[in-house]
Amino acid sequence: MRVETPLLDQVNSPADLRGLSDAELTKLAQELRAEVISVVSETGGHLGSSLGVVELSVAIHAVFNTPVDKLIWDVGHQCYPHKILTGRRSRMRSLRQGGGLSGFTKRSESEYDPFGAAHSSTSISAALGFTVGRDMGQPTGDAIAVIGDGAITAGMAYEAMNAAGHLGKRLFVILNDNDMSIAPPVGALNKYLNGLSAHAPFAALRSLAEGVEAAMPGPLRDGARRARALVTGMPGGGTLFEELGLTYIGPIDGHNIPELLATLRAAKTRATGPVLIHAVTVKGKGYAPAENSADKYHGVAKFDVISGLQAKSKSNAPAYTAVFGKSLTEEAARDGRIVAITAAMPSGTGLDIMAARFPARVFDVGIAEQHGVTFAAGMAAAGLKPFVAIYSTFLQRGYDQVVHDVALQNLPVRFAIDRAGLVGADGATHCGAFDVSYLSNLPGFVVMAAADEAELVHMVATAADYDAGPIAFRYPRGDGVGVQMPEMGRVLEIGRGRVMREGTDVALLCFGAHLAECLLAAEMLAAQGISVTVADARFAKPLDVDLIRQLARNHAALITVEQGAGGGFGAQVLQYLANSGGLDHGLRLRTLTLPDRFIEQASPAAMYADAGLTVADIADAVRKVAPRQVAAKRA
Amino acid sequence: MRVETPLLDQVNSPADLRGLSDAELTKLAQELRAEVISVVSETGGHLGSSLGVVELSVAIHAVFNTPVDKLIWDVGHQCYPHKILTGRRSRMRSLRQGGGLSGFTKRSESEYDPFGAAHSSTSISAALGFTVGRDMGQPTGDAIAVIGDGAITAGMAYEAMNAAGHLGKRLFVILNDNDMSIAPPVGALNKYLNGLSAHAPFAALRSLAEGVEAAMPGPLRDGARRARALVTGMPGGGTLFEELGLTYIGPIDGHNIPELLATLRAAKTRATGPVLIHAVTVKGKGYAPAENSADKYHGVAKFDVISGLQAKSKSNAPAYTAVFGKSLTEEAARDGRIVAITAAMPSGTGLDIMAARFPARVFDVGIAEQHGVTFAAGMAAAGLKPFVAIYSTFLQRGYDQVVHDVALQNLPVRFAIDRAGLVGADGATHCGAFDVSYLSNLPGFVVMAAADEAELVHMVATAADYDAGPIAFRYPRGDGVGVQMPEMGRVLEIGRGRVMREGTDVALLCFGAHLAECLLAAEMLAAQGISVTVADARFAKPLDVDLIRQLARNHAALITVEQGAGGGFGAQVLQYLANSGGLDHGLRLRTLTLPDRFIEQASPAAMYADAGLTVADIADAVRKVAPRQVAAKRA
Repeated sequence: MRVETPLLDQVNSPADLRGLSDAELTKLAQELRAEVISVVSETGGHLGSSLGVVELSVAIHAVFNTPVDKLIWDVGHQCYPHKILTGRRSRMRSLRQGGGLSGFTKRSESEYDPFGAAHSSTSISAALGFTVGRDMGQPTGDAIAVIGDGAITAGMAYEAMNAAGHLGKRLFVILNDNDMSIAPPVGALNKYLNGLSAHAPFAALRSLAEGVEAAMPGPLRDGARRARALVTGMPGGGTLFEELGLTYIGPIDGHNIPELLATLRAAKTRATGPVLIHAVTVKGKGYAPAENSADKYHGVAKFDVISGLQAKSKSNAPAYTAVFGKSLTEEAARDGRIVAITAAMPSGTGLDIMAARFPARVFDVGIAEQHGVTFAAGMAAAGLKPFVAIYSTFLQRGYDQVVHDVALQNLPVRFAIDRAGLVGADGATHCGAFDVSYLSNLPGFVVMAAADEAELVHMVATAADYDAGPIAFRYPRGDGVGVQMPEMGRVLEIGRGRVMREGTDVALLCFGAHLAECLLAAEMLAAQGISVTVADARFAKPLDVDLIRQLARNHAALITVEQGAGGGFGAQVLQYLANSGGLDHGLRLRTLTLPDRFIEQASPAAMYADAGLTVADIADAVRKVAPRQVAAKRA
Repeated sequence: MRVETPLLDQVNSPADLRGLSDAELTKLAQELRAEVISVVSETGGHLGSSLGVVELSVAIHAVFNTPVDKLIWDVGHQCYPHKILTGRRSRMRSLRQGGGLSGFTKRSESEYDPFGAAHSSTSISAALGFTVGRDMGQPTGDAIAVIGDGAITAGMAYEAMNAAGHLGKRLFVILNDNDMSIAPPVGALNKYLNGLSAHAPFAALRSLAEGVEAAMPGPLRDGARRARALVTGMPGGGTLFEELGLTYIGPIDGHNIPELLATLRAAKTRATGPVLIHAVTVKGKGYAPAENSADKYHGVAKFDVISGLQAKSKSNAPAYTAVFGKSLTEEAARDGRIVAITAAMPSGTGLDIMAARFPARVFDVGIAEQHGVTFAAGMAAAGLKPFVAIYSTFLQRGYDQVVHDVALQNLPVRFAIDRAGLVGADGATHCGAFDVSYLSNLPGFVVMAAADEAELVHMVATAADYDAGPIAFRYPRGDGVGVQMPEMGRVLEIGRGRVMREGTDVALLCFGAHLAECLLAAEMLAAQGISVTVADARFAKPLDVDLIRQLARNHAALITVEQGAGGGFGAQVLQYLANSGGLDHGLRLRTLTLPDRFIEQASPAAMYADAGLTVADIADAVRKVAPRQVAAKRA
């Protein structure tokens, strides 16, 4: 559904905003909101977050001189209004699709995206880097980081604020606080603040604010104080930000264009050091179905604008995430020592299923992967059985803790690694490419991958049972393949794979959820007279060396297949075979992995095609090394 | 030099402390300090930190019921008094030596070390894990984390305090603040606090403290406030800790046994939630040469107790760290865009050399590796040339930032990776084992290793010159091999290795500082009639595929050698050869890497012997695959 947007139609770049009046900017924001809703109704995406920053996007671009000034959106999933304003409007309906615009900010996409993102809490560090560049003569203006109240809880943001306060450089951090609504007194205080003349130096703003507060009638004053304490989560008069050396302004109404403009103009005019502007926003603002839903339409499918009804997914196979959540809940019912940890993703990881039944045994630590991993290690040292449920790409943020606190102490922490492999619309930043390589080299780790949703059930049971050290199992995003589900998980033998199909020419040894593709390739090749063995390795560590030796001995060629980068399962197999002499007399060994480049977003199937990992690709790889083909070529 | 320690001689475990009077504990602490000095004078080690916590160690063990109560020392390098008190006194003179006691806390060493460490800032997360275990019925008592004022600046500690405040569980965090001395008023306030009767509930302690402060004469009161603000680094009345939900007590004198005992007893009796006790200590306390030195004898060699003079290292070859620092300084003199980043290790990384000449271009971000990496990425995006100088093991803490902010955006951040390979007395926690494997799989990364100190100079020049994307170079701890040093660094061709010695039977392809061992092995083998080619790969990514193909073609066997774990350089070579058909017709390929276990501390040479990477090991590996030997065996 397209909407009328006469003002927006005249905006080709942020420069066009700078000639508009405050009233026109307010009207423009309304049009921009309607355009965002219209776009996302066709594309799906992060609607709620984008609706929350419509006015912020307009105000920042109107006041600051982007792209010379560097505007950095933390996470970047709230960037749709920003993209529309920065010359990408015509391509918005390709959002998150193959060949289309990224759902996040991206340096390669626009000069208005000076620092891309998708993981959280990086914006302040990056902005501080730009300020140093500016001070050293690089062609860059001010740096503005916009960060959410969730993202600012991560240790990395704290480190960055601490550093910003220490360096004392001019820098703008806008806290986009969409967690709660604000009582009227705050607006009153804020209006006073914003109405201040330009004469007072910035430091005085704060004391003036305090003066205003003190002069208010009792209830109003208390309200203002309470609001400030509420939104900052702090009991005292000062804020955390002030204690870290940032000047604090706020809270202000993040949907009030005149207030935003006045605050940003004042800040821009007067700031000499780091400033934190606390803007209160409403996630899903201005679209009733979003505002009224529990998740504020954080991430949506295509939907009908009038009703808000989203297009439904059609698969009957259970999603891996739900299979994990249910399996773990069942194991937890059998074993009271099982606990689970998530870093701000209870529903994304399926732990909401366990939390519904065992709320005291599920710990959401917020965006704090480092703490989450070591917290789990502490629980393991205390005798519990912790499961850290986490996306592959986010486990990267707890890597030192995995090495130093878990592996080195050989503590039985279980890692349930979701979103392994290519993930679709979220693109390269969310791809689970590296976990097998960065875990399989750690002494004592057990590393598994589920070939299908039934295997995932068994791996949850195996991890629950295994208490001898750290153990990880990975599984992809999305729906399973529709296999028969077991009544109950079965404990797998550690380091033992399985042969799925016996053949004589070439062996495919698959690690993880590409097993179905391998079986299909074998089927296709059988029709062409090539006999293929297909095995499911189940373990990248410890390897099933008996199985590998047998496959190597009985076939002219062996191909490993995995949903991950090089240096992972295939490299483990190669190292084992090379060092045990298994390659000394010739074996056509190939490793099919993700290629050595980042894969752009598209459907998972299209991404695997881009990566060269389709059924046809696997069949091609087999044909190239199959003995008859090789013989034919030689003849 | 042994000392008289009549009281300490009666202490076999912390239980023996619990029968002693406060006066006897004070005397015991004196003996303990003398014993620590005596031990470290013979062994070397982290003297300053251990001397700073002598009284804390005595008081905590006297008040808390260790090992049922879990005492967790952050970093763990201050654990010498703790080890002496917990049954390890007789083994102290084996500290940091092969087969001896670890220089850090270690679970496998004692039940009094419930959670080991060596990297910083993990203790609060682990302690919180133990409190959950206790609440779920595991046999564990209270959890006490002792963390320094440096370690508490890391994001991970903030995440943990945030989580502790949120969960509200009974937990003790002792902030060991050894950064500054405290004026008398603090002691007065503190004495009042500690003298409080046991009747008041804990929360009231704080308000009582405030009452006391208000009642003080002006100068005293201001002094108390200033001290509190100074030591916490905060301008306001509340502390950061209180805002995160911890009850704050302090500052107290961390060297006054009666004060410590009173505070800990009161806290233990009354705490219902998380408590932070702020103890002010002096690094090197009680040993004049330490107190008077700039680094407070943080890490020392063996020394003479009377004079404080340390044994000198005898090598004439320059240490890699200093070579890096000097080379980078010279490059920085030539190129004003070069900046450098360290996470709290300016002297450990050699950046103090650059800081002496270009103080405004060296950024010490504190213990904040995550921020440090993304800050560098921001500077690169702004057009600067950032060098992140960091130990291999600590880069693990910025891994997600390396992937998400640097590699995905292909930003030219330079990583100078010190302490690659085995590092000696610091043991497995400080080993630089995994960097090649976790970096070489990242698309677009250039990964180098310096074979000697002259190569390091060239790699600094190469990194300074290279602006097409991220680039890393690794080098070991300790002294170089004594090669001729170049006048100036030379820019190396990316992805090009070099042949050091031509042979005909077997090729050794070395990545990094084991090149000298390879050359010695070749020399030894030549005398035995085996002709060995030795090549220096220089690059793990991109590989010198021409060189590898040539080595594979012209030799019956190829052995890769590296100072790192599996999945690294050798795996890259294997993957390249396998997928290009280079193994199809037989090649005796072996990868010499660190073994798949953690190597315990010893001298670096002894650790490499343990790892199977001596000259003799390399020669053995060659003999096993050399064509004549193989032929002889078959005959």
